[in-house]
Amino acid sequence: MNEIQNALAFVVELEKLKAVLRKNKPLGLDRYENSAEHSWQICLAAMSFAPQMGESVNISRVIEMLLAHDIPEIDIGDTIVYAGKTVTDEAEELAAAQRLFGMLDSEVGERLFARWQEFEAGQTLEARYARAMDRLLPVLQNVHNNGQSWRENGIRLEQVLQMNERIGLLMPKVWAELKPKIESCFATA
Amino acid sequence: MNEIQNALAFVVELEKLKAVLRKNKPLGLDRYENSAEHSWQICLAAMSFAPQMGESVNISRVIEMLLAHDIPEIDIGDTIVYAGKTVTDEAEELAAAQRLFGMLDSEVGERLFARWQEFEAGQTLEARYARAMDRLLPVLQNVHNNGQSWRENGIRLEQVLQMNERIGLLMPKVWAELKPKIESCFATA
Repeated sequence: MNEIQNALAFVVELEKLKAVLRKNKPLGLDRYENSAEHSWQICLAAMSFAPQMGESVNISRVIEMLLAHDIPEIDIGDTIVYAGKTVTDEAEELAAAQRLFGMLDSEVGERLFARWQEFEAGQTLEARYARAMDRLLPVLQNVHNNGQSWRENGIRLEQVLQMNERIGLLMPKVWAELKPKIESCFATA
Repeated sequence: MNEIQNALAFVVELEKLKAVLRKNKPLGLDRYENSAEHSWQICLAAMSFAPQMGESVNISRVIEMLLAHDIPEIDIGDTIVYAGKTVTDEAEELAAAQRLFGMLDSEVGERLFARWQEFEAGQTLEARYARAMDRLLPVLQNVHNNGQSWRENGIRLEQVLQMNERIGLLMPKVWAELKPKIESCFATA
């Protein structure tokens, strides 16, 4: 296939992320969220909270990372963050990333693969910020949704606070706003 | 509200775009596509086809434009492109954009509003490329889906060719690949 056919095939393959369901329901809807719509919203969340990070974050790289971060779920599905990842999970995810970004067989594909790797490694400031956004979104849905995905999956307050405190390491004011909302969400359980 | 509360409220408001349905169905799914998942896919499509445009396109600006381009649909809903826009439609869309991007009350909100305006005006190279992508995606779904949204809405081959020829103005090789697929989609009707 030539580069145009590769790009067309890749974009068609992306259709499948619309069928990968997450554990949260979008506010006001009685269905589970899919990873494609989540991936759009998280890019805008990253733009919206960027002023909390000062000038130092390269927001274009964060956005590319977030556009790519869930694409391997096309092959391996979504897992709730509280479940953790095994070495086997990580190997399968890497194989999925190689297959999917490899479909482009181009510099763009290499860049998306690199962004995905950067996100997974979580070392750069951009990756840490992107990962904090990936925590923030389900927290925000849960505090407006009576803790729907926490309840359905038996997640306790201590787990939520421990998993999401990284939001506070990067953005203490945002965490100060969210933490009491999380607590009152469990208080009314 | 302070800037953090504004950003939180804006991200929560974005949930509503997940409920705005388009006319196409994602491939393999028996439901209509929503504008949020479309907005994610189109950003990756813009990255994937960027090499067809040479070095001259600022892809980060294109991506910001595409992340923002359908947000006013939260207030006004989606209309099929073949229906055209009246002056009243345009005024309502502007009011929606002002309300929604205005929620951020920040430079980020101003930037997103400017990107939306640039997309709507369709004058810059970035806007023309972004709009070509917005045509390409439903075409790609239709040629893999037996023309589902064209059939359901009584759209004729001549309308499809006329509406989408702008893809060919910017990316003649991509259009050369798509045009026969569109034609054979109608030939098997």
